[in-house]
Amino acid sequence: MQNRTDLALELKEDAKESSLLSGIAVTTRIDASHHIKETKITIKNRKGEEALGKPKGQYITIETKDLSRNDQGFHREMSDALFSNLKSMISEDSKILVAGLGNAGVTADSLGPKVVENLYITRHLKKEGMIKEARELSAIAPGVMAQTGIETSEILEALVEKTKPDVMIAIDALAARSSKRLNRTIQISDTGIAPGSGVGNHRNEITRHTVGIPVLAIGVPTVISVPAIINDLLEEEEQETAYKKLDKEFISMHVTPKNIDESIRRISYTISEGINQLLHIRENRE
Amino acid sequence: MQNRTDLALELKEDAKESSLLSGIAVTTRIDASHHIKETKITIKNRKGEEALGKPKGQYITIETKDLSRNDQGFHREMSDALFSNLKSMISEDSKILVAGLGNAGVTADSLGPKVVENLYITRHLKKEGMIKEARELSAIAPGVMAQTGIETSEILEALVEKTKPDVMIAIDALAARSSKRLNRTIQISDTGIAPGSGVGNHRNEITRHTVGIPVLAIGVPTVISVPAIINDLLEEEEQETAYKKLDKEFISMHVTPKNIDESIRRISYTISEGINQLLHIRENRE
Amino acid sequence: MQNRTDLALELKEDAKESSLLSGIAVTTRIDASHHIKETKITIKNRKGEEALGKPKGQYITIETKDLSRNDQGFHREMSDALFSNLKSMISEDSKILVAGLGNAGVTADSLGPKVVENLYITRHLKKEGMIKEARELSAIAPGVMAQTGIETSEILEALVEKTKPDVMIAIDALAARSSKRLNRTIQISDTGIAPGSGVGNHRNEITRHTVGIPVLAIGVPTVISVPAIINDLLEEEEQETAYKKLDKEFISMHVTPKNIDESIRRISYTISEGINQLLHIRENRE
Amino acid sequence: MQNRTDLALELKEDAKESSLLSGIAVTTRIDASHHIKETKITIKNRKGEEALGKPKGQYITIETKDLSRNDQGFHREMSDALFSNLKSMISEDSKILVAGLGNAGVTADSLGPKVVENLYITRHLKKEGMIKEARELSAIAPGVMAQTGIETSEILEALVEKTKPDVMIAIDALAARSSKRLNRTIQISDTGIAPGSGVGNHRNEITRHTVGIPVLAIGVPTVISVPAIINDLLEEEEQETAYKKLDKEFISMHVTPKNIDESIRRISYTISEGINQLLHIRENRE
Repeated sequence: MQNRTDLALELKEDAKESSLLSGIAVTTRIDASHHIKETKITIKNRKGEEALGKPKGQYITIETKDLSRNDQGFHREMSDALFSNLKSMISEDSKILVAGLGNAGVTADSLGPKVVENLYITRHLKKEGMIKEARELSAIAPGVMAQTGIETSEILEALVEKTKPDVMIAIDALAARSSKRLNRTIQISDTGIAPGSGVGNHRNEITRHTVGIPVLAIGVPTVISVPAIINDLLEEEEQETAYKKLDKEFISMHVTPKNIDESIRRISYTISEGINQLLHIRENRE
Repeated sequence: MQNRTDLALELKEDAKESSLLSGIAVTTRIDASHHIKETKITIKNRKGEEALGKPKGQYITIETKDLSRNDQGFHREMSDALFSNLKSMISEDSKILVAGLGNAGVTADSLGPKVVENLYITRHLKKEGMIKEARELSAIAPGVMAQTGIETSEILEALVEKTKPDVMIAIDALAARSSKRLNRTIQISDTGIAPGSGVGNHRNEITRHTVGIPVLAIGVPTVISVPAIINDLLEEEEQETAYKKLDKEFISMHVTPKNIDESIRRISYTISEGINQLLHIRENRE
Repeated sequence: MQNRTDLALELKEDAKESSLLSGIAVTTRIDASHHIKETKITIKNRKGEEALGKPKGQYITIETKDLSRNDQGFHREMSDALFSNLKSMISEDSKILVAGLGNAGVTADSLGPKVVENLYITRHLKKEGMIKEARELSAIAPGVMAQTGIETSEILEALVEKTKPDVMIAIDALAARSSKRLNRTIQISDTGIAPGSGVGNHRNEITRHTVGIPVLAIGVPTVISVPAIINDLLEEEEQETAYKKLDKEFISMHVTPKNIDESIRRISYTISEGINQLLHIRENRE
Repeated sequence: MQNRTDLALELKEDAKESSLLSGIAVTTRIDASHHIKETKITIKNRKGEEALGKPKGQYITIETKDLSRNDQGFHREMSDALFSNLKSMISEDSKILVAGLGNAGVTADSLGPKVVENLYITRHLKKEGMIKEARELSAIAPGVMAQTGIETSEILEALVEKTKPDVMIAIDALAARSSKRLNRTIQISDTGIAPGSGVGNHRNEITRHTVGIPVLAIGVPTVISVPAIINDLLEEEEQETAYKKLDKEFISMHVTPKNIDESIRRISYTISEGINQLLHIRENRE
């Protein structure tokens, strides 16, 4: 029974000092806007993987210094910070396929499909010669296995083979441990999406290994898992008893705040804007 | 800190023997289909009100004998059972206003709006003389206070004054304690909707007292509250410590199963069908 | 059989010279951004009413000088221009009720409900003392008569009586004659909404006369009516023959472009932003 | 400039007698319910292809004898008739992939995605050994090219290669010529979907030729094209002048009735039920 957070930032809080020395590197910086805090966690080797329970790679968390801030300026700064990080991870001319993971019919799990809705799709326009300068972007919201009967990774692998993008950006709703981070924190990772994480577990591993190209994962915690709540409330020795009594169905259930619709609407727009900036078709922005 | 279930059936499980004798009456019967179990709980007086924490009146629960059954026959039987109960509570020629409570943008809270979507609305057709035989039915999905800035009870009271229906049917998503009852149990009550209950608390009291006409409440448990889970897992003495440690934001959060979209789609259709039968315009059904 | 445009701007194109002299005044100006063209048509008297087939009052049209422009800057400028016009028509401290008219389930008719989704609602927060400085804003998306069985004007009248706002802003999808204006033109009027106009005709008159307070109407053409197309294509003498042959059901049908979902998403956001600026809670915007 | 109907039934009305003799065969029968009329049009050879402008194959139209009938019985009978036709065209044990074509965000084009929403998906359950008896069904709603940047046919071809179904059922919204057939007629064809047809043209050809397995197409007319209206209203010699004057953007626009949301909800449910019967998991239906 794990802690069930998908945020490397939260997993790190539990990690032992020693692992920080030998397997994990952490750096923090304040964004140019003076409002955004970025934490970069690098898992360097197997020791780090074991300490955090996550594969080797980089995990960047973007959040505001003041977690209660929620105005329009905040969203602009978050989308700019997302953009700079993506830009540094994707080469200038790579073709991008965005995968909006999750179930569009379940509000807390609809982040991925909602992001895709607001993207400027260019692949078909470039193929038809209707635009020239912009980067090639395609997107898919494949749905979840209960809707398709097909593993999400299979769908994406098939699409990559057929349409030959250079890099995939996979957007997904995550689980967090702290309610304060819900819908206000963006995690960017170069490791793709590993099984066992995320809200709906709508996939097997979605990584370079399965889909054949590098996968950047963008995630936002939108729910808290029941086990995370139990772990927070109980001492370690009591947890075991509690889990034994717990209705097994609860393990996969999630806790969401009431205004989840509004949060998803805003944060998905923030992410779309960050990705759209990669297209270089908004010079006239200011 | 209460148990936070909106089902009288579950509250009854905790009630002391003595209150059952003096303030609460319970009867159970199996429906003509041999598959549906109906439990009628009558809160007779103040003693009963205190024992269950609910106002005086009738609370009828419809559920299948076999809770794992979930086929098309099940939905037909549930809607028939709902119809018979409503028919016995509403006089032949009363004009009905259906209020679909809840937030259409949050899946677990969207039961009310979804039911309204599938109703056969007749009020305007009768006023225009386009149909004659059918009963007058109007409906509204007023949204929640975060969306409107207005108490739901105020909106409904205003509408009742203006359009003069004889009875209101208020549909709402409820909280339950047991995951087995989620999306498979319908509670019908003649007491309206009292504050402090329901998923999103999107209202003050919606009762004859506030809206001016009798209010039948139809509810389906779609979520489980965090306190209900804690109470289930912990002994009474441990609960207090747990609540002290609990992030206050969790108290109002809810736990939902992953396939909530599918459940809401099916059960809302079941309820619409039950209400539509009140219109007498489906003689050619078989 | 009329031309079926809801834009005063397009009706004016047909008006006789003489009526322009005696009943209608037209002024045009370019917005501070140098990109937005505003046309103000004032219908001054009965002569003007007859010439345009619209009630006395002001009709302001906001559009870009270059109708093919459709970038983020465009949306920002349009929302700023909408804001300045609204500000000049609504006194500093009036309480506002926004009515998002139309059917949320039909894309071309969903403008009103979509605008309401993105508003910052403050009425309940002010009542609860949670915010102080902002203006009081409430909102409702009442649905259309086929969904409720109730005239939209009745619902709004009831709400106004109960919640006592000072002014109503009614948002609605309109019909235009020219495809070039679809989803790129905003009409603001101080006359409310008169019957026979709009996409779905989801109302009787919504004016100060019916709802009891001044009504500002904001509309965007999202469809073109079939009669408008016929009038465009045929000489006057041929039109009559065509109408006789026309399937009567077509008269109330509408023509929409394929990418209507994207257009509605953008323009509704533009309008929400314009209205949200009325709240004075975005000082930190730039 | 063609008539722009996707219904073989309507194209046949224009065909010359002679082609009926040599290239097209038409048979009509009344369904067991005595309410459903089935018309089977077989295009036998190139002569037939030229006469109707459609590829060789079978086109079966299901409609009620009384087109104004619209009760629950009607929907049950339509879904039963759809089921019998599908059953006769698909062998007992073939694995099925359903493709719900169209844009879920545009009501008139959302038929395909809506049908997929109500299917009982079994492929993953069979793979995991959770059910045995039922047929293998998977489904995808791939979106339209403006949303994905990828040809729909490419997505489907990739998925077929990866998941190896035996047959595809492609659901799509069609254009008709007569308003009476809108949302009340189902066309089933064994030819797949050819370019130039359908509401949004969201594909290149989707046929055995492109996706590699047989494609059954299920379509319902939900819109009428502007050219169809012009052709209806004008004599042949006038049409040409009209098209010259017509705003080119109109050619791809569509005319829809106002209550399109309700129609799509009902007819999509009817089609889902017809397909679900193929699964043999509803023996307890009556």
